[in-house]
Amino acid sequence: MAIEVDYRFPPGVDAEKQAKVIAVGQTVGTWDERFSHQEASLKSHLAEVIAVKSESNTGNTIATVRFPEINVENDVSSLLTMIFGKYSMAGIGKVVAVRLPENYGNNPCLGISGIRQRLGVFNRPLIMAIFKPALGLSAADHGAIFKEVAFAGLDIIKDDEIMGDLAIAPTLQRFYACRQVIEEVKEKTGRRILYAVNVTGAADKLIDKARLLVREGANALLLNVLSYGFSTLQTLATDPEINVPIFAHPALAGALCAAPEHGMSYSVVLGTLMAYAGADAVLYPAHYGSLPFDPVEESRIKDILRQRNVFPVPSAGIHPGIVPKAIKDYGQDVILNAGTGIMDHPDGPAMGVQAFFEALEALKNGQLFSLDSLPDGALRRAVEKWGGSVS
Amino acid sequence: MAIEVDYRFPPGVDAEKQAKVIAVGQTVGTWDERFSHQEASLKSHLAEVIAVKSESNTGNTIATVRFPEINVENDVSSLLTMIFGKYSMAGIGKVVAVRLPENYGNNPCLGISGIRQRLGVFNRPLIMAIFKPALGLSAADHGAIFKEVAFAGLDIIKDDEIMGDLAIAPTLQRFYACRQVIEEVKEKTGRRILYAVNVTGAADKLIDKARLLVREGANALLLNVLSYGFSTLQTLATDPEINVPIFAHPALAGALCAAPEHGMSYSVVLGTLMAYAGADAVLYPAHYGSLPFDPVEESRIKDILRQRNVFPVPSAGIHPGIVPKAIKDYGQDVILNAGTGIMDHPDGPAMGVQAFFEALEALKNGQLFSLDSLPDGALRRAVEKWGGSVS
Repeated sequence: MAIEVDYRFPPGVDAEKQAKVIAVGQTVGTWDERFSHQEASLKSHLAEVIAVKSESNTGNTIATVRFPEINVENDVSSLLTMIFGKYSMAGIGKVVAVRLPENYGNNPCLGISGIRQRLGVFNRPLIMAIFKPALGLSAADHGAIFKEVAFAGLDIIKDDEIMGDLAIAPTLQRFYACRQVIEEVKEKTGRRILYAVNVTGAADKLIDKARLLVREGANALLLNVLSYGFSTLQTLATDPEINVPIFAHPALAGALCAAPEHGMSYSVVLGTLMAYAGADAVLYPAHYGSLPFDPVEESRIKDILRQRNVFPVPSAGIHPGIVPKAIKDYGQDVILNAGTGIMDHPDGPAMGVQAFFEALEALKNGQLFSLDSLPDGALRRAVEKWGGSVS
Repeated sequence: MAIEVDYRFPPGVDAEKQAKVIAVGQTVGTWDERFSHQEASLKSHLAEVIAVKSESNTGNTIATVRFPEINVENDVSSLLTMIFGKYSMAGIGKVVAVRLPENYGNNPCLGISGIRQRLGVFNRPLIMAIFKPALGLSAADHGAIFKEVAFAGLDIIKDDEIMGDLAIAPTLQRFYACRQVIEEVKEKTGRRILYAVNVTGAADKLIDKARLLVREGANALLLNVLSYGFSTLQTLATDPEINVPIFAHPALAGALCAAPEHGMSYSVVLGTLMAYAGADAVLYPAHYGSLPFDPVEESRIKDILRQRNVFPVPSAGIHPGIVPKAIKDYGQDVILNAGTGIMDHPDGPAMGVQAFFEALEALKNGQLFSLDSLPDGALRRAVEKWGGSVS
């Protein structure tokens, strides 16, 4: 199978012509008789336009270009250069779908099944929190916050994506403070809990830091893939030493995806490209939150990720009261990632975690998430603050 | 000095409110009394809105946010996460300027002065070609093409950005074929010529390949910075083994920059970020070419790059006849990068190179670039094909 890319062009653009510009200009270019000795080889690298279809409802046109797989290096970076590199600067058209051979790129090292196995949790969504405030706390503060939510039953915690290797709480110190909590929880409850440590820095130092963290016992990593590059994700994902799940953060995705007629679709960047670059779990904005996310596009991301065993992690507007709606939208194989939805619970972060587990239990029992019927407790307190939802 | 970022918002958006969302949401977030023991630390990490100005001619508003430098790691990747990471997904506003402390990030290892020194050429623009066709030729074909243009006096050649480490012409083999030409030219003419080899692959392999190439004698590298990540550029730029100029290619820049109201300006991505990430020379589309590039934005890129001794490399629509206009627009400290403008000269690539040098000479002598007055020769033949320009 070759690589197929759908480009969407607005009304008034000659989509067929643009698709031909892409098929030739993003591969071989033109040649003359001086290269007749290599004619067969040149032709084997050319892309071709295989479909041009108008959308009746929008007036847009979708043109599909098929690229030879021999033009790229079985990774996302060279793929990006080929399918949109120079042509992106033409400022016409948006990449709305990329179809890759099944064996292209990398598979997640662990993914949904592996992360569940590490945690020993198989039959419910996973609950994830984020350290807040994002910047300004010490490593010890991180440890104290972690202890609170960890003993309340949390599955996973992650650094805020803005938290790098900063003087106020250096990565290693943050990690050591939290490792102690992980060990304590294991010892006292038998439960495992993951801490996705944000890895940052120049590529070589980032990779070294990731290896060091894993050697020291880190059990998950967080990467701002679009700030650091898919090539960095690929290295982490395929490194035999780094046998822990990699959580991909969508920071900067809007710069590539938010414009209606330019760049690439969110489902391409946060779905296809992340899934084929080896991420184990991918965060993306849920349409519940304040970010203007299209539910259709969001649903595509989820489906694309799951097809490759990658955990979808919807991540905005997630609070205990939204659980019924979230389970309806996402099913069980999802990581519910709550920032303020845990940390800003009126009775503190531990109650925020408990509220999520009460919500899962209440949902199972057919309990309505309304103040009329909810009993006292962490869930009720959360619903008082953030509202409830029906499944 | 702190980090200042200008965000542009279209009419109808409450720019002041959005700027506050950025200043808080992209740094500390909110906190409550539980964190009063860290109040001073938390406040020291907060950004602030320092200006909100309406543009009378467009109705747009520019809001300026000042971020503390302690929030980032003196690199471009963590900077991107902070200034636009999560907020980019709000889909409102565009980053139109980033002002960094002089000592932020990296300086070019060589830049304009260093590249000139390596080549021993100080008083004229440098002439650069690109291997064409881009894909499908063997390593030996590359060597043969290189020989033709190198002996004609070319300063620099680069791989097409789409050419990776492919079976048809593996990077090392391409390099060895071209190294032989570099040595031959040196031996027979005393001239030096640079070949910017495209480095590709997963981050660790890309870095290793770059080091290997330099050990083997490579005298320049090419990197698709936006496909591979600024963190990779930073590693190459600061590696003590990699003491050769790094040419940054703008592939994918349009996905970040082409939309009118989303993403980031070209002058931010191809100017500021490249210059502070340690590129020695940066390619960008000249407004002469087929890509719809704004001359004002292009001029900004050039100025930003030069301020840090980075070589501007305008790169579309460059042919011998445009030289008078190009020199007027860019001055002498520029690399004129011609793809078809050299390789598709009617009498072959060597004549394409010669035509550029005839053009520089003709300009010096006040020769008009019109068919009425040009004598027979490579330049006249180029102007017959592509037209001329007046200075």
